[in-house]
Amino acid sequence: MGSFEVLYQEKNSSLRLGKLVTSSGEVLTPALFPVATQGSVKSLSPQDLEECRIQGVLCNIYHLYLRPGIEVIERMSGLHKFMSYFKPIITDSGGYQIFSLASLKKIRKEGVEFSSHIDGSRHFLSPSEIIEMQFRVGSDVIVPLDECVRFPVSFSDAETSLERTSYWAEKSRDTFLRLKDKFKREPLFLGIIQGSVYPELRKKAVDTLLNLGFNNFALGGLSVGEPFDLRYNIVSLIVEKLPPSSLRYLMGVGTPEDILEAVERGIDLFDCVIPTRLGRTGTAFTNHGKLVVRNATFSEDPSPLDEECSCYVCKNFSRAYLRHLINSKEILGVRAISYHNLWWFSKFLRQIRSAIKENRFGEFKRSFLGKYQGNSD
Amino acid sequence: MGSFEVLYQEKNSSLRLGKLVTSSGEVLTPALFPVATQGSVKSLSPQDLEECRIQGVLCNIYHLYLRPGIEVIERMSGLHKFMSYFKPIITDSGGYQIFSLASLKKIRKEGVEFSSHIDGSRHFLSPSEIIEMQFRVGSDVIVPLDECVRFPVSFSDAETSLERTSYWAEKSRDTFLRLKDKFKREPLFLGIIQGSVYPELRKKAVDTLLNLGFNNFALGGLSVGEPFDLRYNIVSLIVEKLPPSSLRYLMGVGTPEDILEAVERGIDLFDCVIPTRLGRTGTAFTNHGKLVVRNATFSEDPSPLDEECSCYVCKNFSRAYLRHLINSKEILGVRAISYHNLWWFSKFLRQIRSAIKENRFGEFKRSFLGKYQGNSD
Repeated sequence: MGSFEVLYQEKNSSLRLGKLVTSSGEVLTPALFPVATQGSVKSLSPQDLEECRIQGVLCNIYHLYLRPGIEVIERMSGLHKFMSYFKPIITDSGGYQIFSLASLKKIRKEGVEFSSHIDGSRHFLSPSEIIEMQFRVGSDVIVPLDECVRFPVSFSDAETSLERTSYWAEKSRDTFLRLKDKFKREPLFLGIIQGSVYPELRKKAVDTLLNLGFNNFALGGLSVGEPFDLRYNIVSLIVEKLPPSSLRYLMGVGTPEDILEAVERGIDLFDCVIPTRLGRTGTAFTNHGKLVVRNATFSEDPSPLDEECSCYVCKNFSRAYLRHLINSKEILGVRAISYHNLWWFSKFLRQIRSAIKENRFGEFKRSFLGKYQGNSD
Repeated sequence: MGSFEVLYQEKNSSLRLGKLVTSSGEVLTPALFPVATQGSVKSLSPQDLEECRIQGVLCNIYHLYLRPGIEVIERMSGLHKFMSYFKPIITDSGGYQIFSLASLKKIRKEGVEFSSHIDGSRHFLSPSEIIEMQFRVGSDVIVPLDECVRFPVSFSDAETSLERTSYWAEKSRDTFLRLKDKFKREPLFLGIIQGSVYPELRKKAVDTLLNLGFNNFALGGLSVGEPFDLRYNIVSLIVEKLPPSSLRYLMGVGTPEDILEAVERGIDLFDCVIPTRLGRTGTAFTNHGKLVVRNATFSEDPSPLDEECSCYVCKNFSRAYLRHLINSKEILGVRAISYHNLWWFSKFLRQIRSAIKENRFGEFKRSFLGKYQGNSD
């Protein structure tokens, strides 16, 4: 059921438009999915996401496994019904969270043993179980367990880690093939490409996944501290190795600069906490760059966050009011800026798709960055 | 400009319907105003309030004076524009907050000296300044500085305190008369009745305020820990002394039981933090009583908070999901339950008004309490 199709490929460039088809609807790419880690895009309702024209969200299976538990979601008729969100949901394997949040980890070929970051309880999860949980909650896009290494990491550590990730990919693939018959569903199934910043390892990772029969891919282990240029050298190198027909999802990436750079290299999909995480600290995205609402300079500023925005927040609230709400720790401030940020990113991605369609992406990128980075041209 | 009118008075009872008219619109009474202490009903947007058919809100002048400051609100064209809320706003004098939140208080005839609960800065406010601030922010209903004593308090302490409140009422009245000409606005101006649980003091308070020319009244110093029956003896006694044409606003009161009891005694207006404060801790109001969503019993409950409710939250979210959100400290949980609670209270007040109109309040009260308190009849 899950599939990806390239709708348009620009000549002599990697720019492209695509369509991700799932049983919960279609997604036009390039697209950015906000993060609903624990089953909610922080502070926002499904109706807000609809108003912001968000096409889908990313949930985290590690978090949902610990709380409320996979059984609960299953009994509540799946994640879509549970969240009252009926557009595509990607579930992240939670590998990244196990490695970053959980403690007392023991990583073996068979899986990962760890202590819950919530209550310290002890858990073991195998790559197969992680695939099965994603089936059970009714995810539209399934991602295998992987190990995401930090930056910098030595070649040999990255290599050892990649071997484990590759082994897990194989186990996950076997489980996926078995479960798609059992559940009578075929979500999109992504191979995760690791290998840190080592070209040799990244190439090897792609070869392994292709040999295992993966058709669509997530690029993992990027935006973990490596320099911007190095990140995009790696992205280019990976994209070159991937079949043109495959979905390319760059995980955890999402500044406007990153999105432009990655789209230009043929990336189709992003997920990112930035719109809501920055929203919570009172930072708003605008066409003229980020606006730190807390700044005293806005204390009597009657203008909206973004003069060019037509969202509810920009039509109703001044910077002065939003600054007051954030300073006073009023939830409405967090909610309002998160809403505006999602609205802004959603529009930004639509603008990118239009620019690609009309063969003027280069011009759009220059003009956008000129304004966004304050060098208006 | 600000006025109150009794639209209907039931024979042989204190039940009545009224209309509060302000330059920001009308309010049908009995009504409950949610609290927007710092300029926002916690977690909710003006649009939410509109959807919940909320008729007006209460803001707190002590909080707004400290943050963002009266000048800021004035320069932002007043509180309505600042909050993007254009229905009636009552401003509380902040007396209660000065006495409960601020520290190092020195109370003199001339006013109150105190340290800010935010940054410890030292402030002095006179009763006149407090009236002036309410004019400056463009409040629709103005309340003088008063001293709200705790329960229990000795007669002589209550008497001393009442003398000060009465003196402040006189100063406030003088300022009001001067400023309504200066600002060319005449907000509704309420006298605050104090006197703890002592009938003699309460009667004296009313006499003083009537002699000062007050036409509309707030009942202060109730719901501060006194027994339920004592509270309503005092309410009855005060209402009896007040001119029938005057607005009777019972401050800080708002459980469903309290509202029914007070409405029956002729109270027209309430403000209360309960719908949003309980919302924040995950407690929802339903026709069958309060529902503590955190309870493990709801972990797999697919039903809405309230089967009889048609709000967005009840149409979209299960108890299981809301429990998960509250347990996971997701803001959406707080927001959703606060929204439902406001919706519920708003409907409850509409039901009360209908019941009074149709001369079946007694029956409504019995039937409501039967269900709400679990003794269905």
